[in-house]
Amino acid sequence: MLLGRVTGTVVASRKEPLIEGWKLLVVRQLDAENREAGGYVVAADAVGAGVGEVVLYATGSSARNTETTRDRPCDAVIMAIVDEWEIGGREVYRK
Amino acid sequence: MLLGRVTGTVVASRKEPLIEGWKLLVVRQLDAENREAGGYVVAADAVGAGVGEVVLYATGSSARNTETTRDRPCDAVIMAIVDEWEIGGREVYRK
Amino acid sequence: MLLGRVTGTVVASRKEPLIEGWKLLVVRQLDAENREAGGYVVAADAVGAGVGEVVLYATGSSARNTETTRDRPCDAVIMAIVDEWEIGGREVYRK
Amino acid sequence: MLLGRVTGTVVASRKEPLIEGWKLLVVRQLDAENREAGGYVVAADAVGAGVGEVVLYATGSSARNTETTRDRPCDAVIMAIVDEWEIGGREVYRK
Amino acid sequence: MLLGRVTGTVVASRKEPLIEGWKLLVVRQLDAENREAGGYVVAADAVGAGVGEVVLYATGSSARNTETTRDRPCDAVIMAIVDEWEIGGREVYRK
Repeated sequence: MLLGRVTGTVVASRKEPLIEGWKLLVVRQLDAENREAGGYVVAADAVGAGVGEVVLYATGSSARNTETTRDRPCDAVIMAIVDEWEIGGREVYRK
Repeated sequence: MLLGRVTGTVVASRKEPLIEGWKLLVVRQLDAENREAGGYVVAADAVGAGVGEVVLYATGSSARNTETTRDRPCDAVIMAIVDEWEIGGREVYRK
Repeated sequence: MLLGRVTGTVVASRKEPLIEGWKLLVVRQLDAENREAGGYVVAADAVGAGVGEVVLYATGSSARNTETTRDRPCDAVIMAIVDEWEIGGREVYRK
Repeated sequence: MLLGRVTGTVVASRKEPLIEGWKLLVVRQLDAENREAGGYVVAADAVGAGVGEVVLYATGSSARNTETTRDRPCDAVIMAIVDEWEIGGREVYRK
Repeated sequence: MLLGRVTGTVVASRKEPLIEGWKLLVVRQLDAENREAGGYVVAADAVGAGVGEVVLYATGSSARNTETTRDRPCDAVIMAIVDEWEIGGREVYRK
């Protein structure tokens, strides 16, 4: 899994029927020091995340192992909203 | 999933029988600010996209979870045509 | 899927029994403008490609969804021989 | 699999129910010479690793093939604590 | 699949039970010209490879499709020992 910040939303009216009803969020990847790492994904959301929140997301086939995404064409899913993380005992982020 | 722009088409007469009938589209990856990010994929198309359109595509095993591609050797599929996307409340793209 | 050019062959007499009989081809990745992109894969061949040909190949689990490779330890397969591709209405490659 | 060093922990109270109870560890990737390679993952832990330990981790769908993670949305798992590794007969790391 | 050179070994006494008995080998990735490409993996071994040998390895879910690794948390496996490879009719490597 990777850490990311939800920064935006994507709207698409014409789409594969199996993804109807998903909120599609733009998630920018963070490095382990809470800096933007350059990459992003558009993720489905299994936990009700909103713009600005720091989240944990899974990619690849693992992204299909949530209630929301099972057997659907999803390769990235937000699976947790992060409260805090520490590196070497030092707090890097707190919500 | 990632954002991309359909920029071209590939024609192949000799191919694995399981992909017969697919439209094969060249999709250039976009970054979150609607700039070309350098990469591309050749994707199958589950939604009837055309050259010039901005799309959302899935890669990896997830690309086999649409009606068009199920159980076929597909590692990239266009799954939505994007109407608009926003970053931090700012509109980055509108169709 | 990605575009590549078949540039060579690999011979291996001692190998996992499930891949016996495969032709193993070195495929250099091409970018969307038909330039070598730096990467390569050694791919199984589902369509009878030869050295010098431009091909379309799939990677990851999708590479196991052809007749040749099903349920075998294959992470890259040539699935089509490319006749031509166009970018923005301009012909980039013709066989 | 890749070698990494456990450097931190992530706390998330709101999460996909299928990952309840996991310890979420920040693992920095090491290169073959035991230097930090720049990347990281947040991994589930199948072996009881702690901060500071050098571990072996698997990514992608393989990360779901441990007791801890089976059929859950996990794309990175710590599967061993490394005692030592050698390159060319030279000891690079010993616990 | 990719070409690599086996350069070392990893020892781990505390590990996920499903990988008990595996020889864990450090494999440095080679480019198509037999130069080290910078990356590495720690791979399971399906063919009895030793340090110094040039091998072909598969990654991702395909690494679980050998006798040795089926249904186990393996994302990289050595599946052949390379005898030789050619690029454009020129021999790049012979054992």
